[in-house]
Amino acid sequence: MKKLVLVNGEILEWGQESISVADRGHQFGDGVFEVVPVYNGRAFAILPHMDNLLEDAIKVKIPAIYTVEELVEFHEALIAESGVSDCEIYTQITRGAGDYILSFPELSVPQLTMYIIPVDREALEEKRAKGVNIITEVDERWAKCDVNTLNRLPEVLARQKARESRAFDNLFIRDGKVTESTESTFMVVKDEMLWTHPENKFIHKNITRRLIKERLAADLDMQVIEKAFDMEFVLKADEAFLCGPRVGIMPVTKIDRTHVGDGHVGAVVPKLIAAYNAFVERECPKKS
Amino acid sequence: MKKLVLVNGEILEWGQESISVADRGHQFGDGVFEVVPVYNGRAFAILPHMDNLLEDAIKVKIPAIYTVEELVEFHEALIAESGVSDCEIYTQITRGAGDYILSFPELSVPQLTMYIIPVDREALEEKRAKGVNIITEVDERWAKCDVNTLNRLPEVLARQKARESRAFDNLFIRDGKVTESTESTFMVVKDEMLWTHPENKFIHKNITRRLIKERLAADLDMQVIEKAFDMEFVLKADEAFLCGPRVGIMPVTKIDRTHVGDGHVGAVVPKLIAAYNAFVERECPKKS
Repeated sequence: MKKLVLVNGEILEWGQESISVADRGHQFGDGVFEVVPVYNGRAFAILPHMDNLLEDAIKVKIPAIYTVEELVEFHEALIAESGVSDCEIYTQITRGAGDYILSFPELSVPQLTMYIIPVDREALEEKRAKGVNIITEVDERWAKCDVNTLNRLPEVLARQKARESRAFDNLFIRDGKVTESTESTFMVVKDEMLWTHPENKFIHKNITRRLIKERLAADLDMQVIEKAFDMEFVLKADEAFLCGPRVGIMPVTKIDRTHVGDGHVGAVVPKLIAAYNAFVERECPKKS
Repeated sequence: MKKLVLVNGEILEWGQESISVADRGHQFGDGVFEVVPVYNGRAFAILPHMDNLLEDAIKVKIPAIYTVEELVEFHEALIAESGVSDCEIYTQITRGAGDYILSFPELSVPQLTMYIIPVDREALEEKRAKGVNIITEVDERWAKCDVNTLNRLPEVLARQKARESRAFDNLFIRDGKVTESTESTFMVVKDEMLWTHPENKFIHKNITRRLIKERLAADLDMQVIEKAFDMEFVLKADEAFLCGPRVGIMPVTKIDRTHVGDGHVGAVVPKLIAAYNAFVERECPKKS
């Protein structure tokens, strides 16, 4: 794989890019991001991902200087030039460089950077077979978690804590209710229904969540209930899982050292995983 | 003034620096900062400022790879080489560049960047004479505001709103209590006492606040009361002001279009300003 970076539409060798010290991403985390999984050399669900990105940019008043079509082209160019078929593509738009003032600079031009994140999907599959253990943490993030901004330090610190506890991820709990993990949606299965936190300012949107809600659950004749719940509810549930563009669908079998259900991967989550995989295969078929 | 930037101890022409797209400051706002005012070619209260910076780095588990003495030297070198005598110096330490994972990368080396922010102190003096108007906003920031991190988007958006309202700054109100503005401490004068929010996780530490509390107030025989208060209390107060390394001490005469006290700069705040100026003159005397 050739390591490349795309800056404002131009593809460069990795390390040839030169971000300004005064880029507002670097100074204030003043930008938005999106991660798109690539299967078989095809960017998965690229249109809703890019719609999300541009909507988020508008929410923090960063002018959208690229169209969805251009962003799709950039994804395709990065895939083609790097010669990689399974990866993720990271895209970030900052407000650009400007004088050191908190309010928006008059003359800044938004800066687009993109690059390929290598993935080890085999390692993820091994984890998927057994389920993962996670820990929990009080959710003290700001109240605009629905926007994918670059202000990710609370998630960085929580994820590091998970790693130090040999856990896969860290689940946030705000005012007693489970919100989401550091980079995935959290759902539980109870009485053959899926429960998850409602889509509001306390959780990130994500395409995998939407796919489950709008399509996969219905295909499996399951209802999705969007309602906040506490850890007591989770520990009485039958199964639990994380979902998102980076993990796909990942069974959770243990939380804070306590088993979820009987502590093994249940019957429902593997059906969802199979439905997700089938959907991915239709959307991103192997290139002949 | 020569525009310069210091990266990991090396001084470069502005624009010659080359921050990696994968610097965790750029990706996650994963870093800390400090701003030091420079008067008469001397960095003001440099030791407590640098202690603050290194304490903040430790709080987010960024290894302190520079000593206070080195950071002081870098300040002096930037002042000498740029030939500027009145300015601010911005210092930022990020966790460095790494693979795209939320938890800390194994091999990253923290990155130090510093540069000079030009200031227009005359314009600030004009504002100080008349007092400024500010607006208010609900404080939905995360619960680690006591660390000067690069996760500043809530403050960016709030400050932009102030600017669009032709206000000097935006004052945050959390659960009905006034916390601080987007980059300064807020205090009110009532019955010749100073009132301000207690130093806890909801407000930034700052050296000007500490100077007032530990020295200037005592010099003026005034007590500082650290207790959270609401806007009703503020609007019944005699005077109000912002304080911090970037504004010094700035009288606030109007909040959300309502007068504070009689709507004019009062008697107490100018005394504090005079005491602050005298302190600065002693600490940063003109070079002969």
